[in-house]
Amino acid sequence: MMSTTVSLQQKVLSENDRRAADIRRTLAEKRIFAINLVSSPGSGKTRLLERTLVALKDSLRMSVIVGDVQTENDADRLKRAGGRAVHPIVTGGACHLDATMVARALEHVNLDRVDVLFIENVGNLVCPASYDLGEDLKAVLISTTEGDDKPLKYPAMFRRSSIMILNKIDLLGMSDFDLDRVKANALRINGRLEIFDVSSTRGDGLEAWYRWLSGRVRAKRDG
Amino acid sequence: MMSTTVSLQQKVLSENDRRAADIRRTLAEKRIFAINLVSSPGSGKTRLLERTLVALKDSLRMSVIVGDVQTENDADRLKRAGGRAVHPIVTGGACHLDATMVARALEHVNLDRVDVLFIENVGNLVCPASYDLGEDLKAVLISTTEGDDKPLKYPAMFRRSSIMILNKIDLLGMSDFDLDRVKANALRINGRLEIFDVSSTRGDGLEAWYRWLSGRVRAKRDG
Repeated sequence: MMSTTVSLQQKVLSENDRRAADIRRTLAEKRIFAINLVSSPGSGKTRLLERTLVALKDSLRMSVIVGDVQTENDADRLKRAGGRAVHPIVTGGACHLDATMVARALEHVNLDRVDVLFIENVGNLVCPASYDLGEDLKAVLISTTEGDDKPLKYPAMFRRSSIMILNKIDLLGMSDFDLDRVKANALRINGRLEIFDVSSTRGDGLEAWYRWLSGRVRAKRDG
Repeated sequence: MMSTTVSLQQKVLSENDRRAADIRRTLAEKRIFAINLVSSPGSGKTRLLERTLVALKDSLRMSVIVGDVQTENDADRLKRAGGRAVHPIVTGGACHLDATMVARALEHVNLDRVDVLFIENVGNLVCPASYDLGEDLKAVLISTTEGDDKPLKYPAMFRRSSIMILNKIDLLGMSDFDLDRVKANALRINGRLEIFDVSSTRGDGLEAWYRWLSGRVRAKRDG
């Protein structure tokens, strides 16, 4: 039975990979830069997106797909933040988004009017690592209240991400979380990680994130 | 193929339930009280256990099974805190503990010398909700830095838990997290939740948790 489980999982994954490749092709044609945002519950994905939607609304056309196990709370928050195109996916128990869910949500997006697509994944530092959604890259968030050993304990997510956003740096000093140690741990898992220190509530570091994002979007649009 | 997936998952779960029932029977015979600790990564399960191991070491014989995707960091921390019987399970990618893993770990525990068994699950607010480990009850931790809507967004875990430990109350006021709101949200999902407000670093509320735990252990031992 174990072998059946494994081969079935492989089948599910390769089906997912096929659909992810379709999404990636479509996004390439439309020159849309797509980021898959992953983290534990409560690391601040939604807050970061709220700030980003407000700050860049005049320079980028942004669309968001938001996954949650239950509720459309995050989608509602992002709409209130001025998100012009926010598409909730309620997974109804599933612990991750898959490419089929994203493809279905994308049917409601006018891709001719989008520069950047944010995919806010379900809050889960394990399962979403295994599902390609057709994105350009994964961005893993980790907050300073979670403990600086997380990259070592959940290595797949940090290995498959291209950038790490260290959020809630306004709370540094409130615990024994060590900024240098978390970075060293993350770089041990993935030496090519690009790292941003931010506070999505206080605003620290957000300019660097906006600049990086705008640069990547422009590169894909003009490339 | 969807139906194959579903029936296979049901098979896996009922196999898990059978093994969990075996564990539960053994723990009942030995009069061991068992708690399955679940939460997001970084909510403070290990810190709470460290404090508990130190505080109750003269009155309770405690054993801990610690699950992590990678590393034995948490197990090492708990051993340093004086845990006499700490048994790491490295799931190697799996997003939850299952009853088979726990049964295998229990083979190394001298059950005649244990009053309480803590099972520290993988940090994941979704998947561990589906796996009975033979415990007396699940305790869900949530920290004040994670956002007060988590019970609504991850309802299965809060529905299947008997107690909710609100950790990091020393960080209240650092964000817009509202203690009354998180409790109202949790009780909407599960009206029978017993709730503890604690700070595992500063110590607030721990006495109430120790008293409750000791009472439950005694009830099972003497019952």
